[in-house]
Amino acid sequence: MCSVQNGIKEESLFDPKILYNLDFSKSTTQYNPAVSVKDPGEGLYMRPLCRSDYDEGYMSLLSQLTKVGDVSREEFEARFSAMESCPDSYYIVVIEDIMTKKVIGSGTLVIEQKFIRKCSSRGRIEDIVVSDQYRGKQLGKLLVDTLMILSQQIGCYKVSLECKDNMVNFYSQFGLAKEEGQNYMCRRFKEM
Amino acid sequence: MCSVQNGIKEESLFDPKILYNLDFSKSTTQYNPAVSVKDPGEGLYMRPLCRSDYDEGYMSLLSQLTKVGDVSREEFEARFSAMESCPDSYYIVVIEDIMTKKVIGSGTLVIEQKFIRKCSSRGRIEDIVVSDQYRGKQLGKLLVDTLMILSQQIGCYKVSLECKDNMVNFYSQFGLAKEEGQNYMCRRFKEM
Repeated sequence: MCSVQNGIKEESLFDPKILYNLDFSKSTTQYNPAVSVKDPGEGLYMRPLCRSDYDEGYMSLLSQLTKVGDVSREEFEARFSAMESCPDSYYIVVIEDIMTKKVIGSGTLVIEQKFIRKCSSRGRIEDIVVSDQYRGKQLGKLLVDTLMILSQQIGCYKVSLECKDNMVNFYSQFGLAKEEGQNYMCRRFKEM
Repeated sequence: MCSVQNGIKEESLFDPKILYNLDFSKSTTQYNPAVSVKDPGEGLYMRPLCRSDYDEGYMSLLSQLTKVGDVSREEFEARFSAMESCPDSYYIVVIEDIMTKKVIGSGTLVIEQKFIRKCSSRGRIEDIVVSDQYRGKQLGKLLVDTLMILSQQIGCYKVSLECKDNMVNFYSQFGLAKEEGQNYMCRRFKEM
């Protein structure tokens, strides 16, 4: 297991203290039963993504979300290092099943630095996924909530995400709303 | 003037060679009369954002787009350095009026590194602005076209942008399309 417990930063994508010190009084949503970053559920453990998560099924988890392709350990580690080399930009939070040592949930907050808004930053929530066997345990909610609070604490002037029609209702509990007259346009260059 | 002509990298946000060597055979749009990165129009000069652009009216240009607020030279330079410290992430292209030495157009391509899609990257086009006196000269089109081609050349698996209803038509010429059932949701934390 990636040893970030007790706030020790060791091969984790960002300082775990940032995660464990978040102020959840800023949460806009409710849990029943109560779960939290420090106690996401029985046998579960929430932490930053670690370099060793290639061996804990991280890519396999992502494949439940979208196309992933074959990624070698070297490619994974190169990407991990590339993210690390961008200070204060990539916050990937995962949930691990302590027994199986598998990563079973993940969510990403990416920070874009701006010159506008007094050189502020904008957050984007990306790639939220919970393994199918672990759904219905409020883990997706906890991941999004955590990243929303993190984006606010970092000082983002806004945070956004893209989602399918059937998820609009789910995301509205975090204070996210569709903006009237604002469109999302996209061009895809390649399949993988 | 920021001396990036002839591909010399000096205090520019990214290597100007990347800009001047783009393959415009990948362009999806038409110009009349012809303009290009190397010749964006009489008396105009296209290049990466430079550290000295604080003095060339860059923040004032951005204020035509959205709220900017008071930004000191130190704050501007700190933000410039922070962007520079994220390798291969921030590509801000500007157009300068050579006579007035003012930046009169700008567009940003931000790269988000992913683990999905074989550790691919996603591009986002942000903060496109052309000074009101310079509109109708195909400069916005040239900026977006340039950033689209750049995103493809970098190897992004997709590129996206957000825009108002009345701009959907304009952006469709670059191969950008609204995606059915895909929503953009946002939460704003502060005014500035």
